Amino acid sequence: MNSELIKSHLRSIPDFPKPGILFRDVTTVFKDKDCLKELADSLSSYYKDKGITKVLGIESRGFILGSIIASRIGAGFIPVRKPGKLPSEVIRQEYTKEYGADTVEIHKDALSPDDVVLIHDDLLATGGTMRAAYELCQKFNIRKIYINCIIELTDLKGRELFPKEVDVYCPITYEGE
Amino acid sequence: MNSELIKSHLRSIPDFPKPGILFRDVTTVFKDKDCLKELADSLSSYYKDKGITKVLGIESRGFILGSIIASRIGAGFIPVRKPGKLPSEVIRQEYTKEYGADTVEIHKDALSPDDVVLIHDDLLATGGTMRAAYELCQKFNIRKIYINCIIELTDLKGRELFPKEVDVYCPITYEGE
Repeated sequence: MNSELIKSHLRSIPDFPKPGILFRDVTTVFKDKDCLKELADSLSSYYKDKGITKVLGIESRGFILGSIIASRIGAGFIPVRKPGKLPSEVIRQEYTKEYGADTVEIHKDALSPDDVVLIHDDLLATGGTMRAAYELCQKFNIRKIYINCIIELTDLKGRELFPKEVDVYCPITYEGE
Repeated sequence: MNSELIKSHLRSIPDFPKPGILFRDVTTVFKDKDCLKELADSLSSYYKDKGITKVLGIESRGFILGSIIASRIGAGFIPVRKPGKLPSEVIRQEYTKEYGADTVEIHKDALSPDDVVLIHDDLLATGGTMRAAYELCQKFNIRKIYINCIIELTDLKGRELFPKEVDVYCPITYEGE
């Protein structure tokens, strides 16, 4: 991964969505065709030989690169969504955020026990949403779970929410910035 | 496009999100790796020689195949979002839906006059959201606009909101069902 290329196109926006948060804006990365190609090439190369059958994208920025990886490695794509967005029967997982509770949902027929899953989102911060998606996957008793975010804010220690044997791969890291 | 393959995987859900609406659920299409491959192959083949520089995906189901097409044809990807979701300066467009007004936004620096744009969403129904995204693009004085949805509900006449010279391509059609 050419992380310098990606970092040079990432935009940092102070106080969004709340005061005190430095938001890492990936829209300026996805907008650039060379960055999009670098992310698609590099991540699909990393995941192509792992037997992944489904890529889960977390609503909604996780849909963008998640679906590209799915298409590249020959997997299906599954959305993990906010409550009330999925039209058929769902399984839900509540989790705690900085200010109160939140919920993610997945269709009841989204996965089966023979699946190997990659869960993708744009950013790993405190890891609450990713952990909830991980727990949703566990309810299907699937074979294996991989986790990927483009960016990891390492000082927030989100990866410590997952067992050490889980492959959590985040090519772009920021520490205490 | 093997539309029979896609249609056989589409799920129709009565009374979602409101009574009287037969919802066309694309999650069962994206979940199937062969359907995802057929859509990606067929649409990227259709658009690859048109000089498209940016693909716009409409939040949030339009992010899924929109980003795949962008990646396949070597374009950048731009999200068109609901109000308050984009972190930097935006241009917005209001429009009328069946029950009241709605708004879509795009970043002010998303496009430039030399762009050729494909706007993608999963479904063309009455066309209000797509028309709003089309008007957002026009504000940038770009070179050309293409429109694509996977599914078109032809009896709702959404395509009549666009000038005849605009290429509105929707490979899967339903009429009065």
